[in-house]
Amino acid sequence: MLTNPAPRFCQQCGSAKVELRIPHGDDRERHFCPDCGHIHYLNPKLVVGTIPIHGKQVLLCKRAIEPRYGMWTLPAGFMEEGETLEEGAARETLEEANARVTIEQMYVTLSLPEISQVYVLFRAKLNDLDFGPGTESLEVKLFDEADLPWDQLAFRTIDRALKLYFADRKTGTFPTHVGELRRPK
Amino acid sequence: MLTNPAPRFCQQCGSAKVELRIPHGDDRERHFCPDCGHIHYLNPKLVVGTIPIHGKQVLLCKRAIEPRYGMWTLPAGFMEEGETLEEGAARETLEEANARVTIEQMYVTLSLPEISQVYVLFRAKLNDLDFGPGTESLEVKLFDEADLPWDQLAFRTIDRALKLYFADRKTGTFPTHVGELRRPK
Repeated sequence: MLTNPAPRFCQQCGSAKVELRIPHGDDRERHFCPDCGHIHYLNPKLVVGTIPIHGKQVLLCKRAIEPRYGMWTLPAGFMEEGETLEEGAARETLEEANARVTIEQMYVTLSLPEISQVYVLFRAKLNDLDFGPGTESLEVKLFDEADLPWDQLAFRTIDRALKLYFADRKTGTFPTHVGELRRPK
Repeated sequence: MLTNPAPRFCQQCGSAKVELRIPHGDDRERHFCPDCGHIHYLNPKLVVGTIPIHGKQVLLCKRAIEPRYGMWTLPAGFMEEGETLEEGAARETLEEANARVTIEQMYVTLSLPEISQVYVLFRAKLNDLDFGPGTESLEVKLFDEADLPWDQLAFRTIDRALKLYFADRKTGTFPTHVGELRRPK
């Protein structure tokens, strides 16, 4: 799910009268229930994941789900309640690549305002070579920079993160990158 | 609102039969509507804000709202849909302190897994001294380090961020800090 769906019924009282209204003390329209007063806030979602490194190679996953079925991606997904950024990133890596990693650095943060997502990707070290496709992956594979499937990457966020990584690796310094991506006009 | 309320009715079809169920292909319980199939995902929320600096001073806001009415805080609040992290941080600073800032660095990131929030605080420079309380603040004031109201800070996240800031200022280097806070046992 790329964006939050607008609520049509009140999730607290079931009323069908949910309407857009600026609540008292607020300054923007919210989905408001006039029957029970519940305000349905819609907030951006965090996508957390890792750049799993083994020596000079990066671990990528071939997607077994839409969107971008069959394209390559870094292990990443929606952060869940009750976890830290690092825990979420490691969990996604385990789920999608059956890989255990050691988190090294919060490395790339990207805001995607048009779909209300924020990506937080960590540099991580593969703990061992025991990995393989989870249910959301067709294939999981280590790539050298020269073999990276640049034209088959699933998302522009992944392309951006990998380009930053290989550029930084040449200099040997890895600053935390904070940026944004918008759709090309 | 500190946590996401559990939905009792389906926000898409109004059904009262919403139940906890592990959806097909998922691995954890979600609030699932058996009538229309809608899955109500609950995700962590981003809190964005700034540490607004003017010379050696930091701008703080005295809260005019609960929780922690009357306590001091940095300008910060829930990120909205359609904005970047930086835009959200600057918007909160404008709303709570009527202050315009220049964002300098993503500085402190704190996961609060027990209330499913992630704080992202930026170092920022006050553009001018034209500031004052927004509707959610009683008072807005610049503080020298020596005068900081440490025992009247609203949240532990704020205390942590300010301590990191003053410690880093002594060394002159400001790394990006990534951490977590849990309730004391």
